[in-house]
Amino acid sequence: MISSIFWLVPAASLVALIFAWYFYKTMMKSSEGTPRMQEIAQYVREGAMAYLRRQYTVVGKVFLILVIILAVLAYMGVQNPFVPIAFLTGGFFSGLCGYLGMKTATNASARTAQGASISLNKGLQVAFRSGAVMGLVVVGFGLLDIAAWFLFLTKVIFTPEHMASGMHFMGLTFVHEGTTDHQKLIEITTTMLTFGMGASTQALFARVGGGIYTKAADVGADLVGKVEAGIPEDDPRNPATIADNVGDNVGDVAGMGADLYESYCGSILATAALGATLPLISDQAQMQAVLAPMIVAAIGILLSILGIFMVRTKESATQKNLLNALLLGTGGSSVFILAGVGALAWLEWISWGVFGSVVAGLVAGVIIGQATEYFTSDEYGPTKGIAKQAQQGPATTIIDGIAVGMYSTWIPVITIVLGIIAAYGFAGGFSTEAGAFSRGVYGIGFAAVGMLATLGITLATDAFGPIADNAGGNAEMAHLPKEVRERTDALDMLGNTTAATGKGFAIGSAALTALALLSAYIEEIKIWLSKTPEKLSAFLEASDITSIQEASIRDFVSYYDLSVMNPLLLGGMFLGAMMAFLFCAMTMKAVGRAAGAMVDEVRRQFRDIAGIMEGTATPDYARCVDISTRGAQREMLLPSLLAIIVPVAVGILLGVAGVIGLLAGGLTAGFTLAVMLNNSGGAWDNAKKYVEKGNYGGKGSPTHKAAVVGDTVGDPFKDTSGPSLNILIKLMTMVSVVMAGLTIAYSIF
Amino acid sequence: MISSIFWLVPAASLVALIFAWYFYKTMMKSSEGTPRMQEIAQYVREGAMAYLRRQYTVVGKVFLILVIILAVLAYMGVQNPFVPIAFLTGGFFSGLCGYLGMKTATNASARTAQGASISLNKGLQVAFRSGAVMGLVVVGFGLLDIAAWFLFLTKVIFTPEHMASGMHFMGLTFVHEGTTDHQKLIEITTTMLTFGMGASTQALFARVGGGIYTKAADVGADLVGKVEAGIPEDDPRNPATIADNVGDNVGDVAGMGADLYESYCGSILATAALGATLPLISDQAQMQAVLAPMIVAAIGILLSILGIFMVRTKESATQKNLLNALLLGTGGSSVFILAGVGALAWLEWISWGVFGSVVAGLVAGVIIGQATEYFTSDEYGPTKGIAKQAQQGPATTIIDGIAVGMYSTWIPVITIVLGIIAAYGFAGGFSTEAGAFSRGVYGIGFAAVGMLATLGITLATDAFGPIADNAGGNAEMAHLPKEVRERTDALDMLGNTTAATGKGFAIGSAALTALALLSAYIEEIKIWLSKTPEKLSAFLEASDITSIQEASIRDFVSYYDLSVMNPLLLGGMFLGAMMAFLFCAMTMKAVGRAAGAMVDEVRRQFRDIAGIMEGTATPDYARCVDISTRGAQREMLLPSLLAIIVPVAVGILLGVAGVIGLLAGGLTAGFTLAVMLNNSGGAWDNAKKYVEKGNYGGKGSPTHKAAVVGDTVGDPFKDTSGPSLNILIKLMTMVSVVMAGLTIAYSIF
Repeated sequence: MISSIFWLVPAASLVALIFAWYFYKTMMKSSEGTPRMQEIAQYVREGAMAYLRRQYTVVGKVFLILVIILAVLAYMGVQNPFVPIAFLTGGFFSGLCGYLGMKTATNASARTAQGASISLNKGLQVAFRSGAVMGLVVVGFGLLDIAAWFLFLTKVIFTPEHMASGMHFMGLTFVHEGTTDHQKLIEITTTMLTFGMGASTQALFARVGGGIYTKAADVGADLVGKVEAGIPEDDPRNPATIADNVGDNVGDVAGMGADLYESYCGSILATAALGATLPLISDQAQMQAVLAPMIVAAIGILLSILGIFMVRTKESATQKNLLNALLLGTGGSSVFILAGVGALAWLEWISWGVFGSVVAGLVAGVIIGQATEYFTSDEYGPTKGIAKQAQQGPATTIIDGIAVGMYSTWIPVITIVLGIIAAYGFAGGFSTEAGAFSRGVYGIGFAAVGMLATLGITLATDAFGPIADNAGGNAEMAHLPKEVRERTDALDMLGNTTAATGKGFAIGSAALTALALLSAYIEEIKIWLSKTPEKLSAFLEASDITSIQEASIRDFVSYYDLSVMNPLLLGGMFLGAMMAFLFCAMTMKAVGRAAGAMVDEVRRQFRDIAGIMEGTATPDYARCVDISTRGAQREMLLPSLLAIIVPVAVGILLGVAGVIGLLAGGLTAGFTLAVMLNNSGGAWDNAKKYVEKGNYGGKGSPTHKAAVVGDTVGDPFKDTSGPSLNILIKLMTMVSVVMAGLTIAYSIF
Repeated sequence: MISSIFWLVPAASLVALIFAWYFYKTMMKSSEGTPRMQEIAQYVREGAMAYLRRQYTVVGKVFLILVIILAVLAYMGVQNPFVPIAFLTGGFFSGLCGYLGMKTATNASARTAQGASISLNKGLQVAFRSGAVMGLVVVGFGLLDIAAWFLFLTKVIFTPEHMASGMHFMGLTFVHEGTTDHQKLIEITTTMLTFGMGASTQALFARVGGGIYTKAADVGADLVGKVEAGIPEDDPRNPATIADNVGDNVGDVAGMGADLYESYCGSILATAALGATLPLISDQAQMQAVLAPMIVAAIGILLSILGIFMVRTKESATQKNLLNALLLGTGGSSVFILAGVGALAWLEWISWGVFGSVVAGLVAGVIIGQATEYFTSDEYGPTKGIAKQAQQGPATTIIDGIAVGMYSTWIPVITIVLGIIAAYGFAGGFSTEAGAFSRGVYGIGFAAVGMLATLGITLATDAFGPIADNAGGNAEMAHLPKEVRERTDALDMLGNTTAATGKGFAIGSAALTALALLSAYIEEIKIWLSKTPEKLSAFLEASDITSIQEASIRDFVSYYDLSVMNPLLLGGMFLGAMMAFLFCAMTMKAVGRAAGAMVDEVRRQFRDIAGIMEGTATPDYARCVDISTRGAQREMLLPSLLAIIVPVAVGILLGVAGVIGLLAGGLTAGFTLAVMLNNSGGAWDNAKKYVEKGNYGGKGSPTHKAAVVGDTVGDPFKDTSGPSLNILIKLMTMVSVVMAGLTIAYSIF
């Protein structure tokens, strides 16, 4: 039976959605400014919606094919029968969040500009609370989906009657006869674990497609507009300028949101699945262990909302005041959440060890964010050093930027390593006692849940960035007074800082989530082994036990030889590292091709449409939007399919050990590579801005030209390939989890 | 007792050294050309020797410190007492090879130019046979060192009397009482395994120092000479031109030689150690298993010499004839070696399974080499694509080159994965029977030995490159007639092709060697566990066995939890991936700093020494050589020490599981990253040359400028950071092997 505290979970998610609705309505009530501002905002809105329409059409087709495959596999008995439907709900809610976030963001930009024309605080409020809509719908719908499925499975499917007699429908077995309460929880949580696949697939296309879109538009706009035609950023005469503004939303709102939606659901579900298998004595305790990650998430939501209300600044705010205002919100939320989780431990709902794991996750998130800030901000040595090297030309700029990115991996990697070991150690200890491992990996899951507990407000600070950026674009294109542009610039710079720390947070949480999923993968293997009689008997015989319930993690490690000494596993590791590099290569090439098409179109418009440069004719914005959109859709398919197919192929060719190797290799190499790409890109971007501030010759100097080369190289690094790796490492794990049945049934080894 | 066939091993190594001496003498007898040619050659020789002197001084100090540390550890009982001395012999022979190779190469360049002024075949003969000196001293001294130690340990230390009564000296235990014949072999081979550390340390400094030197000189010469002063490559007026020519020898002769010396010894020793632990019935069979890798290497030496004599071409040879001449030599050797190893199998000296493993290694080496050729030669799409992108400026050149490098990882990775699995499968099968694993990893060792069996001739084709390159420089500086320069250019281009495939071969063999060492690491752990009573009893109790002889690999995997699910191991994997990136960052930054010093010096000379540009004054070549030398020595220390310290630190902090994770993570991420860096760099280099041939505007066009940026970025990629990773992955493994006793005694976990 479910404890009454469970109801906190749907309640918190509904509260999140209500506040999201409230923030949205408040924002919509504020003025959108002059007709010109409204007109520009309307262009961006239309472009964004056009993109989403096409994106969802393509994704819809892919989902249709995948649902059919999943349904066929379910009918073949190697797939959980709920997965095809749950795949759809996960994908649907993730897509809905993207839609709502984009709708809010594209409505908020002109209003932010208008707010900024009144005061800085007003501008901040509009932009930040609109960002909060994205944060709250993500956590709200994410947790709601989880709560609804948990209720449905617990109350409708796994009823005492079904558990006693079994449940079959259309040849599919939903509940086995004689299921016990403990088995019920394991079945429910491992089933729910596979639900993340819908969110993962949606995230994949959102991140990869969004990343390609935004950089194709950006590069196209810059290369022809700024460099060739010599007109400034965000100039309305540039045909690609609207596409560029749309791109900020597509990449940083929809892409980032879908990415973190996946991490959020994945970490909660994985931890719940790990909780179901903890060696506890009572069914009540087991239920608590399953509900605990959801409760922590619910507490996180409520206290994030409190944090959102704490973000405000005085009218005469400086850049530092602005940053402090945001830090007060996120820091305040973190402290409240720690207190809340501490209360859970005090009430003995979770152990103090698990509390320690949550602390480890939260602290790791903060350190990784701050390290990102250090390596990419122009206030510190690394970025300044790149600007200095730019004096010697583009080659040294590139070498130094790559070296900075590679060098910058050390803090995030050591933080993650310490975080993992601490989370495992707090919750499980390092004893050889049988249950220590289960408790330890449960702790690692909680580190991910802890890191993501602040997501409601962290994502608000992320989504704030593109809104502020677009507000600046709107102010520029609508020729608002200089002081308004200065205020939107201040907000934009703040957005750049939060974007950098946000990227660190996204990859850090992706790593922990993937790790929790990797641990839960073994549980999925266990479930499918128990459903495949001939494989089961081979396993039981080799492990010298009589039932799979007795099987310990060591039995699985030994049976599948999950040691690094196994060449299949090691081979998988090599392939995992390769996948990270290959995926980056493909997304980089994709940006190049899509940007090339955009360059051609912008050149064509300058040539064919008379009067653009004089401002007497309006460029064909929609066509540029369309080209970016088409390019993104076309280019995202191949790398995306690769990320889905390779884990399945490795499962069949190299078996369970190969899959574990693939995931571990992809996770470690992918994480390191992603940090490098994000930080190289961020550092180049800010090195260019540092030169533009007047250092080493300022704008137009040879140093600036070299710095621009660095920035251009960094664009696909930090906005396409790097962030896409977050998805790759999670998705490959999720696909492996969902396809565990297939691997068990058909693997060669 | 040792089979008489063993004597083939020292015999083959002596034959190699005799032929090396013969080739050297023949080369020295040929004319060095005009006084001007001799003068230039003398500058390069002096520069090279000045570099080696200083290099060996620094390395000597590091060796002294390490020997003291090793001796103290030996006295503490956590280090094998032979290691300090063996460390020195390994380092000494590796250094000697570097010295002889450099001496030969720097004497050969002017003679090659002189030979080319007679005919192309004559030039080819001088250059190639001089390269063969390097190839033959490496395999000769490498195998001689192994044979000598094997004899010494077998005949002097592990005598029947010592084995019965034990052997102690100065408080150190050399032989335990009651050692059996089988234990003797295990002790001998695991002791010898640690001998590779000397060669590894020497290789580290040779590769890192050489890599920094060559690129500092190259970048300095190009940036000021070609770009600023507008004088051609290899112009004697350029003060850095001699340093540049020295750099080719330092990096590609000494660095490459030391790298492969390490792989060669490491793979033979690791395979012998794995052979000693094979579950065989007779002592005779065990001895055969230990000797087999040495015998295969000896056969490889003899048949490589045969191949060297097959390399000749007609006087009117085209570029294609030249390449075919080399291919005939290397291909012919490979086929002969396969036949020889097949004969061993037919004589039942090795199993046909092991023969299969040798084939897998040889074939994998060829495929990786050819893939490198495909991705970096301007005859194929990838490099042409970069040249095409260069039309749009440096940024797209860089993005495309990085994408090509990342993309190019797929063939080498899949080849290595298939090679590993095939080598394991042929030799061990995939049964769960206890001995299958031992036989399988023995097979992986043989794949490495097989790949490196052709080293005598493969390294000759590598060392040929810088000799031909220097010959071109000599011809240019000595103003030889145009047709001579054309012939040296043809030889130089051939050298570029062999350099590319050589790099693929070096990283491929490094990966297999590291893998063999990783497998042998467990044997080292076993030895130290058996010598540490309290740890041993804990292990025996946990494994439920009464003596360590009964322990299977599964017992170790289980006791140390070497599964990927262990957070300590996973943490190690993260750190391994990070090490690869960090090491690259440090070496890249080092090149930047060293090149900066060179740029300043060249500029200073142009400014301060009147008459340089008019050709009336001679530049101060020696000072440029000195600056490169100092820069390389200063910059190589920090990354090198990191590579030595981190495995020790991880061993103490995270234990055996952490070390295994570190090595596996470093190996997989490092291999992939090295392939990417090598191939990006190679492709940029050849894309530039492709433009210089007149494509897309040719020399001096904006496209060419962009391509030059790519080439400059690629220089440290392909000649410093990429090759240094070969060493990193092997050295970290070797350090772990040597420090296994310390890890067992003092690790926290």
